[in-house]
Amino acid sequence: MFSNRISNVPKSFIREILKVSADPSIISFAGGLPNGDLFPIENIKAATNKVFDIVGPSLLQYSNSEGYKGLREMIAKRYKSFYSLDIPADNILITNGSQQGLDLLGKIFLNEGDSVVMEEPGYLGAIQALGVYKADFLPVPVSADGMDVEKLKSVLAGNNPKLIYTVPNFQNPSGITYTNENRKEVADTLRGSGVYMIEDNPYAELRFSGTNKKSFMEFLPDHTILLGTVSKTIVPSFRLGWIVAPDEVMEKLLVAKQAADLHTNYFCQRIVDQFLSDYSLDDHIETIKALYLSKKNTMISAIKKNFPENVSFTDPEGGMFLWVTLPEGISSMKLFDKAIEKNVAFVPGDPFYTNKTDVNSFRLNYTNSDEETINTGIKRLAECIKEML
Amino acid sequence: MFSNRISNVPKSFIREILKVSADPSIISFAGGLPNGDLFPIENIKAATNKVFDIVGPSLLQYSNSEGYKGLREMIAKRYKSFYSLDIPADNILITNGSQQGLDLLGKIFLNEGDSVVMEEPGYLGAIQALGVYKADFLPVPVSADGMDVEKLKSVLAGNNPKLIYTVPNFQNPSGITYTNENRKEVADTLRGSGVYMIEDNPYAELRFSGTNKKSFMEFLPDHTILLGTVSKTIVPSFRLGWIVAPDEVMEKLLVAKQAADLHTNYFCQRIVDQFLSDYSLDDHIETIKALYLSKKNTMISAIKKNFPENVSFTDPEGGMFLWVTLPEGISSMKLFDKAIEKNVAFVPGDPFYTNKTDVNSFRLNYTNSDEETINTGIKRLAECIKEML
Repeated sequence: MFSNRISNVPKSFIREILKVSADPSIISFAGGLPNGDLFPIENIKAATNKVFDIVGPSLLQYSNSEGYKGLREMIAKRYKSFYSLDIPADNILITNGSQQGLDLLGKIFLNEGDSVVMEEPGYLGAIQALGVYKADFLPVPVSADGMDVEKLKSVLAGNNPKLIYTVPNFQNPSGITYTNENRKEVADTLRGSGVYMIEDNPYAELRFSGTNKKSFMEFLPDHTILLGTVSKTIVPSFRLGWIVAPDEVMEKLLVAKQAADLHTNYFCQRIVDQFLSDYSLDDHIETIKALYLSKKNTMISAIKKNFPENVSFTDPEGGMFLWVTLPEGISSMKLFDKAIEKNVAFVPGDPFYTNKTDVNSFRLNYTNSDEETINTGIKRLAECIKEML
Repeated sequence: MFSNRISNVPKSFIREILKVSADPSIISFAGGLPNGDLFPIENIKAATNKVFDIVGPSLLQYSNSEGYKGLREMIAKRYKSFYSLDIPADNILITNGSQQGLDLLGKIFLNEGDSVVMEEPGYLGAIQALGVYKADFLPVPVSADGMDVEKLKSVLAGNNPKLIYTVPNFQNPSGITYTNENRKEVADTLRGSGVYMIEDNPYAELRFSGTNKKSFMEFLPDHTILLGTVSKTIVPSFRLGWIVAPDEVMEKLLVAKQAADLHTNYFCQRIVDQFLSDYSLDDHIETIKALYLSKKNTMISAIKKNFPENVSFTDPEGGMFLWVTLPEGISSMKLFDKAIEKNVAFVPGDPFYTNKTDVNSFRLNYTNSDEETINTGIKRLAECIKEML
């Protein structure tokens, strides 16, 4: 009755986990939500009232598929100031969050069985979105410095992928960041292969320490597609993201966007544009970074104090997640069941892998719990881990 | 380089037409826009400020894939009051306009080469959205009373379609409405075939005269999928629509929705919910209907006065469009070129057909021009038609 593409997609494991974690008696490090205490709600409200008054009734009318030009120019300006990249506004398409960017890219690029290089572990939303188009995933491990270039070379030698998917800054799920050297090596490996690099970049501006890294756009200007979003820095509920792509890709994306939903919410595009005009995004981001850094430090300290020595973890320089690795052979999925009994939740590693189960690593989110909750939760988790070892 | 599904989709003809018609010196009957003068902007603004105050920061947070429960309950209530239909809120999924409903249905149902029964002429947005999934369209003509049941029978006899797509009320593009008798016959023909009826219903509430017709949901409760939207009655820029579907379909739709964009804009769902709680939608719709009826009457009078006798046209009981048919062999596409020279635009029939070109009919929108403009535009169009005959 249903299409092959949807029949094979299992019911989202992550949705089930979030349902479990919604129980208020459970301490949850499972979600990937920005901290709501920091939403700039008064300024968003002011920007909203301003656009009602400035724009008038056309604020409520249908709009174009590309997105509001003013907002696209604002985004282009930000690429210039943050990355020194010259991105023409015409190469930016506004989408319903960067998740829709992934869906549209899958739609325009992938025939059944086409292959996609995927970070291992990799963002499960990307695995889901591209998986719907029946991508054949080619996992390449990432670790402290970035992507495993030797493995990437061997994968490219034996396959003909159309796309490679990366989150090079404060990766979801692992929190790691590719070094500039690693980016250059990855780009050198890809150059001339025809593979499009999807650089999904929701977290780069949330850097606590260290220095900003280069975009793949600098190394592979003709074959890099950037995904961006306001969900982690300004407001998630508006579902506003964007794709930056070369002309020939943009043309196909526009056709797909129009068929998918005509255009992105125009009202909210105008509000965000007004917000960016009237207030300092940099100042707002500073307050987010200060809070997230302190929460991350609390979690790292609690982990160091409570977790057994043979459990390793990443210490990210930004973003929202860290990654814990248990000794070989210990299933994070089994740990999850145990942890839920003790009222603490996280996301087991399995959904971040395209072809492995019962993996020994898992993701912790540190942006959404207060200090005391983090300490209590990590203590409980430590007890569960000790029971399993 | 690109997927087969997107390589075959031509650059949208309709987008090109809308671009031409955006020239302010052109009188355009081409668009499908609601009249912006009637947008309830003050009440939407008040509802917006109220939700900021009532909901607080969580108004800006991520939300669930199904959509806001309060809004889904509000929609269920409306089905009860307008159609006497009992639709559980759990069988309603909020989408980015009903266009996204079409995309998700294509995604979950269609393998390459699966067939879809399509009204002829039919809504071009549906042809686009389902065409992306490489549907094999089976056109069945519609005329004054509804769908050609004999043709439907013969199509079902020789094929095994998964879906049938209809706009039974004030159809886009033709403006016709299926009679209750025709609906029953269509339903009787489909019963037991396993085909899902997609009843796309953006205009039913915009009825000027005659009586409301029954939903296919009454005849085929297990195999009807309803699409709805607030774009034609309240606000288009929010991109808020919904799908009503049976449990087994809803489960797949949810998976597809999550992979496509996680969820629909939560902020705007809350605003519309508040608007519907605080104000009378019925009163608002009365003002829309009064204006559209008067504009439709103006256009019908102008057509009667100016068009040659051998040109026929529909006189819809509601909605936004009427359909003009030229004598056999006269191409509406060629008429379009001529009309643009005289600064008047419409949508030629071609994009509403799945397998015909140079058709002799075309669509006129009457909701967006004032009386004088309608008279001037129709006069100019009449001159062009006379030149071609």
